[in-house]
Parts: sequence; C-alpha cells; structure tokens
Amino acid sequence: MKFKADRAALLNGISTVIRSVPNRCTLSILECILIEADDDGLTLTANDMEIAIQTHVDADVTETGTLAVEAKLFHEIIRKMPDTEIRFASDDKFAIKLAAGKSKFSIGGRDGREFTGIPDIGDSDNYIMSQGLFREMIQTTIFAADASGTDRIMNGEFIEIKDGIFSITALDGHRIARRRASVDAVNNTSAIIPSKALNDVSRLLVNDDESVIISFSKNHASFQFSKTIMVVRLINGDYFDIDRMISFDSETEIMVNRNQIISCMERALLFAKEGNSKPIVLDAADDEIRFSIQSSMGNMNEILDAEKSGQDISIGFNPRFMLDALKAVPDDTVTLRMINGRSPCYISDDVGLYLFLVLPVKFVR
Amino acid sequence: MKFKADRAALLNGISTVIRSVPNRCTLSILECILIEADDDGLTLTANDMEIAIQTHVDADVTETGTLAVEAKLFHEIIRKMPDTEIRFASDDKFAIKLAAGKSKFSIGGRDGREFTGIPDIGDSDNYIMSQGLFREMIQTTIFAADASGTDRIMNGEFIEIKDGIFSITALDGHRIARRRASVDAVNNTSAIIPSKALNDVSRLLVNDDESVIISFSKNHASFQFSKTIMVVRLINGDYFDIDRMISFDSETEIMVNRNQIISCMERALLFAKEGNSKPIVLDAADDEIRFSIQSSMGNMNEILDAEKSGQDISIGFNPRFMLDALKAVPDDTVTLRMINGRSPCYISDDVGLYLFLVLPVKFVR
Repeated sequence: MKFKADRAALLNGISTVIRSVPNRCTLSILECILIEADDDGLTLTANDMEIAIQTHVDADVTETGTLAVEAKLFHEIIRKMPDTEIRFASDDKFAIKLAAGKSKFSIGGRDGREFTGIPDIGDSDNYIMSQGLFREMIQTTIFAADASGTDRIMNGEFIEIKDGIFSITALDGHRIARRRASVDAVNNTSAIIPSKALNDVSRLLVNDDESVIISFSKNHASFQFSKTIMVVRLINGDYFDIDRMISFDSETEIMVNRNQIISCMERALLFAKEGNSKPIVLDAADDEIRFSIQSSMGNMNEILDAEKSGQDISIGFNPRFMLDALKAVPDDTVTLRMINGRSPCYISDDVGLYLFLVLPVKFVR
Repeated sequence: MKFKADRAALLNGISTVIRSVPNRCTLSILECILIEADDDGLTLTANDMEIAIQTHVDADVTETGTLAVEAKLFHEIIRKMPDTEIRFASDDKFAIKLAAGKSKFSIGGRDGREFTGIPDIGDSDNYIMSQGLFREMIQTTIFAADASGTDRIMNGEFIEIKDGIFSITALDGHRIARRRASVDAVNNTSAIIPSKALNDVSRLLVNDDESVIISFSKNHASFQFSKTIMVVRLINGDYFDIDRMISFDSETEIMVNRNQIISCMERALLFAKEGNSKPIVLDAADDEIRFSIQSSMGNMNEILDAEKSGQDISIGFNPRFMLDALKAVPDDTVTLRMINGRSPCYISDDVGLYLFLVLPVKFVR
C-alpha cells in the first residue's frame, strides 16, 4: 500500500473514526483503524462492536491495499508531523513507513483481515434532517438519559417516527426531555439508541446546513453525513409509554426570561452541594414570584421578574434538574406549567416542538 | 460591618487571596478569608501558614469591622451575583447578609480574632523588578524544581542576589535551570523559596510594566505588587553549589531554530511513552544533524536544519527533559553546547542571562 495525503485531511479522517476506538480492551485489533486504499482514495474504519464509524479521505494512491494500524499512535504521529504532505508506504509484512519533510517514522501495522468491518444495515427507510437540527435535538435531550444507571432502556434515547413527526426522548426517574420535528416519512418506526452513540454522532455533525440520513434495521441504526457513516447497535426492549406520563393541563403558568431563571438556579446550586439535595422552592403569588433555598451553609431568597397566570402555588425542585431542563430550552422566554405542588412541572412551547418534565421534590419550611 | 463594593473588584480580590486557602484542612479557620473594613476600604487576607496573601479592595464602608468567612462559598456567591453592586452587612454574631439586585443571601461568618494574620517581615532590603520579568524568570525555571520529591531543598527555587545580579535557579537530579538579571542592590543575600509559592506569585503578576518589590527576612520572603502582598515561609538549609556543577567549556556547538527542535522533541516523545524512558539520540556530523529514537512502538529518524561547529558527537537525552529546557529558552535560535556523550548538554546565551543543563542518558544501538 502506498499513498500521499494531505495532513489535515488525513488527521480529520482519523479524528472522526477514533471516537469508536476503545481506550483499552482485550481484543487489541479493536484498538486499530482499518485503512483501505483504492483508486478513490482512503476508507478509514473503526469499530468497537457497539459503534462502527467509516469515513473517506482523499489521497493519491499509487499502490492499493488494506491494513490495520494502532489508532492512537497513528493519530498522534499524523498530528505532530512537520509538513502538509504525508507519504505512506507499507510492505507485505504490514510494516509502515511514514514520512513528511525530513521526518521519517517506522511503525508496525497488522493484517486488515483480522478487522471486523462495518455492519451491513441492508435496505430500509431513510429519514433526512439537517445536521444542525439533529445535533440540537440530541444535545437538548441527552442530559435526561441515565447513561451510567443499571436500567438499559434508560441508558438510551428513544427515536420514534410516527405520522410524519420525528421525536427523540430521554428520561430517568426524575425527568423527561423530548424534542420533535417534522420529517418526510411514509412508514412509522422506532428504536432505542445508546446515548453514548448519540453523543458521538452529535459531535461529528458539524456542517449545520448539510443533511444527515438516518435509517434503522432490526438491530442497528445508521447515520450518514458528509463523508462519514456511523452504524450503532440498538438497545433491545420496549421504551416507556411517554404519552401516558404527560398531561397538558395546567393550573399555573409562569413566563420568565430564560437567562435570568438559569442564573437564579446556578446561585441556588451553591447551597445544594455535598450530596444533600436541598430543594429550591418556588412561591408564586399574584404580586411576587419568589425562589428560595435553605441549607446548612446558608440561604438564598430571590424575587424574579416573571408573569404568572392561574392559581398561586408553592412547589420544590432539585435545582440541578431544573437547571438542566432550562438550559435545553431553545427560546429566550421560558414557560413553566404546573398543576399543584405534588405534580410535575412542564416546560414546553405551544406547538409541541420541545417538552421537559421535572418532578417536584417535597420540602418543609 | 457594612459596605458596598463593586462585584468585579471584590471578586478579583477574593480570587487573589484564595490561592492560599487550602482545599481541606483540620484547622477550618484556614479555609476562611479575613475581611477587614475601614475607612480606606477592604483588606482581604488568606493564610495557609506557608503562604499568606493580603490585598486591598475599594469599597464604600459605612460600618467598620472585622470577620472571617468561608472562602470558597463566599467566592462562588460573589461570582454568581446578578448585579454589579454588592451590599454586605454583618451583625455582632457575624451573621452575613449579602444582596445584589433582587437576590439576597444569608451565610454564617466567624470571629476574625481566630484568624492568623500575615507574618511581619520587619525591615529588610528591597529588590525591585518588573512583574513581567520576574514572572518570566520563575516560569522558565520552575519546571526543573522537583516539587513532589522527598528532597526539601529540591522542592524550592534558589534566589540569590550577588554583586548586583539577581539569579533564580531550580534543579532535580537530571537538570538545572537558571535565569539571571541585573538588579539594584547594596547587599548580597539568598533564600530557598517553595516552588508552589513561586508558582502562585507568578500567576498573580499580571501587570507586566508595574514593579514587584521582593524582600527577605530570616524565615520569610515577601512579594509586593499592585495592591497585594504575599509572604512565604522559606525552606531552611543550604542550596547546592551550582557554580561548581557548571562548565563553560564545549567541544561541539549546535545552533538550531527553537520551534523546529521543539517539534522534533514532541514527535520523539510519541515513542517514549508508558514509563520506558527511551533516549533520543543526537548524531552530529559535519554534513548532517540527525535525531533518532527507537522503541517497541516503532522508530523516528529526523534530519534537522542546524549549524554545527566543533567535534562530531553522538549523545542521548530524555526527550521530555530536553523539551522542557527548549521551551524555556527566550530566543528564537537555540545553542546546544556539549563536551562529549557522557557530559551535560548546556543550552545558554552568550551573556549568562539563561542557562539550562540536561544530563545525557546512555543508549545502545
């Protein structure tokens, strides 16, 4: 195998696929990147058996071939190379020679046939969305997925396509986050995607106006964007029945500037440290909207510029969970909808594009 | 005690002194900042018994007084306050009320008399230098101090004023770093300062063109700059006789672009990972200056654009130590001076303002 490639392009390709290289594992071939060189250039693939990523890199290939190379070392060497043009050559023992300017490196490669390629997802429906929108939908819901918990279903996010609406939902025992968007779709489908994989996808979706093509097979989801395809193993099982958990009634509505209520929650968090989850208490009366928190460290008391309609209410929240939801709201003004002090608080828009649910916390005065 | 202060000014004052608040300690008064309010404004002090820092903050004081407050909580609250004007009031039980805009906080304070104030350094000679130069002298030598080692003397940096030359030196078992500058001084003196304290000083010296006043008593050094004074407990003992360790003979001199040789060392470090300290080998002959390194991961071989005068030489180095020294050189061109493969390499200028010594490492081919 022999090629010349631009350092920045090669580095970008390696940085893309290296997200699915595990840090340490017993199957050391998983720590490698597969390089396939043909007349079109290079195909780079990495696969940790949960997430496989494959991308294309332009290159001037003078000898085609396939081999695997240890991902981290290869990445670091290309990153530190002194010149823009990288010259790559390997022999039939997979020994690799890299050169740029007056620097020369020799490293070992491995037989590419040991490598497990990207799973074939077969023919299935495609859903197309802008990269910017899909990234935002992931990043404003993923905080509610319980990535480190023992419930496998809660580790993932639920993607559902139903009657032309694409929705993505995450939840743990305390809150729900859901985003929705219209999508062109003939059939309905759904899948539970590991949140780690969605986090990786969202970080690779950098061309806001280009599209990402999403499709599902029985056991995998695939995301195609720019020159890259990512295939992810799904979480098997049935997701929670979200619609049954959500009510759109409300007795009290509070409209408030998003940045102001976020700052207020950040201040409240100063008093909720060290594992004692002190609630922040919202007291909403006609003449005043007040947030307060008390702990062994001291207390905070804050009057908010806000508009209230409906009943007076006193309700306690975990300020961390409230803060996470508020930060995910894509509008400058936030509406909190509540029924009473023992029922969930909903943060949502009027047309159903986003919905965040936060359960209340008991408090004593 | 009662005052109004600008949030940014108060935050800056707290951020300055909080460097000498320990993270966790058994004497919880050390985790506090002392606030003294009088007609001139505020004096903030923190003291971990090794390093004491005191600074002035302008404030509109309407009731004078003294109290101690838990540093981290106070710092965080002031940082998150929603308004530019902070209103502070405390009662005779040291209960503190803080307010800004419509936010109100109550936290506990403590009797300031429990607090150990800043040590009195008495009358002693002052040495004056620009903050920018002193910071640079610290930051380009401190890497060679063995801050975590068991040798207390090596934990510190040696400051010596001798015949109008101010020098600062650090060393461990493998290298020496020394910077020198002219200073106005009548008497000679010297002291060993803990490198942790010098690191703290260097980070607080942000006004390059203003001066820092340095003075020493038997057990302390003090650094006065801008509105701040820092008093540091010295390390007792005799420092190493540096002049006896240094030779200015050389058989080989190599001049090279600093950025190029730094990049070369960074590439070499890729092959010196995981605790096996592979040497990088310099082979200097008339026609070619070459760096190479070999390890189980692979090898690097690089020809450097460099000028050599004197004897041919082959010599090995720890690339990490060589890199640290090269990064500290304040010139664009670096001169390596060597005697033979078993003697130290010196990196220095012609007038003695900086000197870095790196011991060689044995290598086999």
